[in-house]
Amino acid sequence: MGEGVRLSDEQRLDWLRLIRSDNVGPRTFRDLVNYFGGARAALAALPGLARRGGASGPARICPPEEAAAELRAARARGVEFVALGEPDYPVRLQMIDDAPPLLAVRGQLAVLKRPLVAIVGSRNASAAGVKFAERLAREVGEHGFGIVSGLARGIDAAAHRASLASGTIAVLAGGHERIYPAEHTELLETMLAEGAAVSEMPLAWEPRARDFPRRNRLISGLSVGVVIVEAARRSGSLITARLAGEQGREVFAVPGSPLDPRAEGTNGLLKQGATLVTEAADVIAVLEPILGRGLDLPAQEPEQELTGPLDHEPGEDERGRIVGLLGPTPVAIDDLVRLSQTSPAIVRTVLLELEIAGRLERHGGGLVSLL
Amino acid sequence: MGEGVRLSDEQRLDWLRLIRSDNVGPRTFRDLVNYFGGARAALAALPGLARRGGASGPARICPPEEAAAELRAARARGVEFVALGEPDYPVRLQMIDDAPPLLAVRGQLAVLKRPLVAIVGSRNASAAGVKFAERLAREVGEHGFGIVSGLARGIDAAAHRASLASGTIAVLAGGHERIYPAEHTELLETMLAEGAAVSEMPLAWEPRARDFPRRNRLISGLSVGVVIVEAARRSGSLITARLAGEQGREVFAVPGSPLDPRAEGTNGLLKQGATLVTEAADVIAVLEPILGRGLDLPAQEPEQELTGPLDHEPGEDERGRIVGLLGPTPVAIDDLVRLSQTSPAIVRTVLLELEIAGRLERHGGGLVSLL
Repeated sequence: MGEGVRLSDEQRLDWLRLIRSDNVGPRTFRDLVNYFGGARAALAALPGLARRGGASGPARICPPEEAAAELRAARARGVEFVALGEPDYPVRLQMIDDAPPLLAVRGQLAVLKRPLVAIVGSRNASAAGVKFAERLAREVGEHGFGIVSGLARGIDAAAHRASLASGTIAVLAGGHERIYPAEHTELLETMLAEGAAVSEMPLAWEPRARDFPRRNRLISGLSVGVVIVEAARRSGSLITARLAGEQGREVFAVPGSPLDPRAEGTNGLLKQGATLVTEAADVIAVLEPILGRGLDLPAQEPEQELTGPLDHEPGEDERGRIVGLLGPTPVAIDDLVRLSQTSPAIVRTVLLELEIAGRLERHGGGLVSLL
Repeated sequence: MGEGVRLSDEQRLDWLRLIRSDNVGPRTFRDLVNYFGGARAALAALPGLARRGGASGPARICPPEEAAAELRAARARGVEFVALGEPDYPVRLQMIDDAPPLLAVRGQLAVLKRPLVAIVGSRNASAAGVKFAERLAREVGEHGFGIVSGLARGIDAAAHRASLASGTIAVLAGGHERIYPAEHTELLETMLAEGAAVSEMPLAWEPRARDFPRRNRLISGLSVGVVIVEAARRSGSLITARLAGEQGREVFAVPGSPLDPRAEGTNGLLKQGATLVTEAADVIAVLEPILGRGLDLPAQEPEQELTGPLDHEPGEDERGRIVGLLGPTPVAIDDLVRLSQTSPAIVRTVLLELEIAGRLERHGGGLVSLL
């Protein structure tokens, strides 16, 4: 993946096909492209990988016509696909481990270049929470930050509305043609004048419950810091806060009464060391020095990458040994290398095959398990 | 001042006379007793000190009959005077720089021996604040801590009421015969069954505004930790929090909405590093290890003390040089010693004279100025 080089139309089509194919997520995409030297070669290799990985049936590869149709539909809707490594790709998002290879952007690309602050919180927000979110979004926005949120009811919508003029970004859990909640369609349209909407999902993707946590990593990944305004004990905003911490982003929380269930989550974050926010200055004072320092390194060490084409394919015995070491309990990839007495490259290849075959689950911290 | 030795009745009378005399505060009391070897000798020396210090008129020395009358009235009211250094004197309070030489106690002396937690906050408390203070006081009290507060309306009264059964202590800003606010007289009587009321002021002392901050150092001084439940930006509870910090006590604060003015003070304390409290366990988790370690040293280094009788009295030239260096701007005692080219003992003596003459003000951090 080149730095700051634009993909050709053909390459963009190949990238879209690869990321829209079964069992290819952002991490696998990166492994495949690095491994095979490009998306086209990776696409060609998918059937073989799936077979060697022991797929139960044929894994669906996105046909060129389908990807071309999505690109056409996107263009018609004013959606642009920005590829990881291209100059328009948001620079902080690029640093996260599972950055989407293609980001579908509607609205102003330029707003994604600004330093961004996420403001998120309960859908079931209190009047005070909404008022505070508005004040914070307006003041942080006026200070030059773009405001990122999730377009949800309550705190998210309040943050977007208060930063319409300064620039605000909605990160969608579904595709650009399936705005959720539908009642915020008009709000979203208004946002596009100075802001943007982004999605990693197919244009017509209807968001399901599990797409929201996945989306939340983009909210934090785009941002220098994340402010949680109101959050109950087990809420999606707390997932965003956790992901922000894992991504090395600043986590801020707004305090509330211990008797208010909507403050349980934020007070909990404060106990865990989040920065307490009662006014915009609290956020700005922490973030400005960070921006002054330029981009930080990611909090997690990047995993070891395969950088060239495969020197030799795994033999049946090697593959068997590695698969034999795997089970439903997550194990460390490092341990697999040691215990299988093969090379990191061989282990990585076998894991890639299993993944494409839909048999592998990746967990945090370099752990994998069989599905 | 002996450790754990009881004063004779005569000594107690002398102590009471000395602390009730003009211009003798707790620090001066200690200096005088150390300097002259006892309260009686100090009383005899007061007129000379005041004269040499340049008093404008005669400083009032508490006559023996007045002190005897206060002791009699106290006994009639069930109030006991406990002297610094006696076995019944609260052990943590003894460690503060300006511990009262005599503490007038009504109720159960034993409760003062328990580990104590102060719970304080706004008089103008919200219903939620009152409810939370009650819950916290009850749970911390049931865990074995005595609950200290200031008998004020709002949070203080809620904390006392919720810990009547486990033991609660009111620290009065006035004397035992002038309960403030008067409407809490009955509450106070109820508290005495398992708890206590303490005061350093004369029995009939009507509390004035400036007596409350002074009283607050006793609330924190008695306690291992201080919890501020609700506090506006400039409130007495914040003074208690500051004093607690200076005394090396743990400071806890209860969070609240940034839009609630009653949470401005507590949120501010949290920003400054106070421990966030949403439940009793937050307080107990911090305090139990401290109790396990036994008593801490005071946070501030004790000032250098004069321990023997004076080797020689200051000469007129020495006194003149030291007074000449003083003015309305606070200066460090160390600088006075250096610039006057006298000894620390001489400087200390001259300052004591000025103090007894009512001409000296002591500030924090070893600074003094002329009044």
